[in-house]
Amino acid sequence: MSKANPVVAIAGATGAVGREMLLVMEQRGFPASQVKALASGRSAGRRLTYEGPGASGIYGSGEGYVEVEEMTRSSFAGVDIALFSAGASVSREYREAVLDAGAVMIDNSSAFRMDSDVPLVVPEVNPDDVAGHNGVIANPNCSTIQLVVVLNALAQLVPLRRVVCSTYQAASGAGAAAMEELYTQTRQFLEGEPLTIERFAHQIAFNCIPQIDVFLDDGSTKEEWKMVVETRKILHEPALALAMTCVRVPVLRCHAESINVEFEAQLPVSVAEARAALEAAPGVAVMDDPLTLEYPMPGLLAGTDDVYVGRLRADPSVQNGLAFWSVADQLRKGAALNAVQIAELLL
Amino acid sequence: MSKANPVVAIAGATGAVGREMLLVMEQRGFPASQVKALASGRSAGRRLTYEGPGASGIYGSGEGYVEVEEMTRSSFAGVDIALFSAGASVSREYREAVLDAGAVMIDNSSAFRMDSDVPLVVPEVNPDDVAGHNGVIANPNCSTIQLVVVLNALAQLVPLRRVVCSTYQAASGAGAAAMEELYTQTRQFLEGEPLTIERFAHQIAFNCIPQIDVFLDDGSTKEEWKMVVETRKILHEPALALAMTCVRVPVLRCHAESINVEFEAQLPVSVAEARAALEAAPGVAVMDDPLTLEYPMPGLLAGTDDVYVGRLRADPSVQNGLAFWSVADQLRKGAALNAVQIAELLL
Repeated sequence: MSKANPVVAIAGATGAVGREMLLVMEQRGFPASQVKALASGRSAGRRLTYEGPGASGIYGSGEGYVEVEEMTRSSFAGVDIALFSAGASVSREYREAVLDAGAVMIDNSSAFRMDSDVPLVVPEVNPDDVAGHNGVIANPNCSTIQLVVVLNALAQLVPLRRVVCSTYQAASGAGAAAMEELYTQTRQFLEGEPLTIERFAHQIAFNCIPQIDVFLDDGSTKEEWKMVVETRKILHEPALALAMTCVRVPVLRCHAESINVEFEAQLPVSVAEARAALEAAPGVAVMDDPLTLEYPMPGLLAGTDDVYVGRLRADPSVQNGLAFWSVADQLRKGAALNAVQIAELLL
Repeated sequence: MSKANPVVAIAGATGAVGREMLLVMEQRGFPASQVKALASGRSAGRRLTYEGPGASGIYGSGEGYVEVEEMTRSSFAGVDIALFSAGASVSREYREAVLDAGAVMIDNSSAFRMDSDVPLVVPEVNPDDVAGHNGVIANPNCSTIQLVVVLNALAQLVPLRRVVCSTYQAASGAGAAAMEELYTQTRQFLEGEPLTIERFAHQIAFNCIPQIDVFLDDGSTKEEWKMVVETRKILHEPALALAMTCVRVPVLRCHAESINVEFEAQLPVSVAEARAALEAAPGVAVMDDPLTLEYPMPGLLAGTDDVYVGRLRADPSVQNGLAFWSVADQLRKGAALNAVQIAELLL
């Protein structure tokens, strides 16, 4: 795939990430010659707003759109790049059809991320890994992407020894319906009505749920495991020590992470050095001024592209430690934007 | 002070913690001969429901109460125990009047916590420290109490080497008006109205604010500093390594904490040993069953007395590490209950 103007299919186009993919392609002017929106049969015929290159309707007219088609194995004829965000089982089901059509699959699900022949790519961190692909490139987990962009910038200073991270993850990380459930439940709570609990294991309104994805035998959750193994793969640090705790919080959009990093070297990395490295790093925005009470907050950064870092300070509890806080829009950098950036690497 | 039936004054009786103190005394049948509710002049004459020993009205009639009196320097004549929860400046202002009256001050503010002649007490952890008091006993910070109850239980197994903790703190930790602001703002957000932001530095509805209390020169916040120095004082471990990140989340009541502990010894502490120690520890309730998706959650534990612990698992990122999650009602164990427990130690 090295066409300058590829045909792009979006599988799962009506979902939270799929819609964001269309928006990101439009905003970045992704040079598609055609965009195909694929979803389940019940969405077929629905028109999704899309004003970017490859839209149906007149480009730039304010009336551009893509019309949803039912996804079948024959949907990928003529497609060059297929962006998948319809769940792991759908990705597994269609992988062969996509590859048979000669298209490259950029998959946002967890289906293939840890396969040894599938690159797991964050363009700011390991763009060169794309070169080794065999038809599938995986997009990492949302909370992983946000973490590795920052860790990679810091690891340029001194190798990392250990990372402890606790997350504050938004409802929309579980999809558009989950975000709607937070809205609905919050209304119900305020009205004193019974709560509708369907998308999360427990009430999410005015609550924190210390579980994301299923439990594994060692007492960790799959989300925590993903953050560990994906970070190691992306950073090419198979033995990096990572301790993760993943928590869902009643926020609509944007994940936050509280991070304590220990560096390998005996020589301390100063806060000033870390700040300079982060300020220079692509995809990172430092937002950190205690005097004006400025730091990143998930409720105020929806729709942004960077990984925001604040609360940068020494961690005096360990010889060579740094503590900080990061926020990123998990639907954009954590999913749609990262996938489109991978597609851009293919051009 | 060793009267079996003391006269108890509650300074700040109309606040979130003061009202909880009355409720805790009532529920525990604290054997007061009289309870005096003190507050600012504008609350004078207001009747607060209180059905415990020392109430006005007929005890046990369902119509018991205490009538609020304006607090003055002469309010403490005849008082044996004065529970203060009206802010640090009020505690400083009245300390002398309380001591001159021969009463013992149990102070929930941060005014005297780190004074060398003031015991800082969590009854499950360091009850013997009460003996050394000179008229003032301090109640620790809410997030500290919750942490030390668990750390103390684990330190009985093997001494602690380092603790990394990120908090998820409820709005009511900033007082009743702050909790009301979360309600109001959430309603405003859902209605698309402008948000009223008065009690927090930023929007709290559907947001996380990584700042509690003011910033210090080293980039930490005063809440983070309190957790470090208070934990060391209570555990009698002046050099214990602690890294804290304190975050306000849109939860009404109950603080949660994500904690990674490293033990001193080379021999690992097993999860089973840690679980047994926690199950045996006074004031701790283990709520931890991945099979039934059971773990403590702040939205569901308001009004409880224990420190709840779940998500207990090995932390494989370090030689001898344990990770877990805790939740406690910061108005009860984190404030009112702990203060009343200290009063009980005095009887």
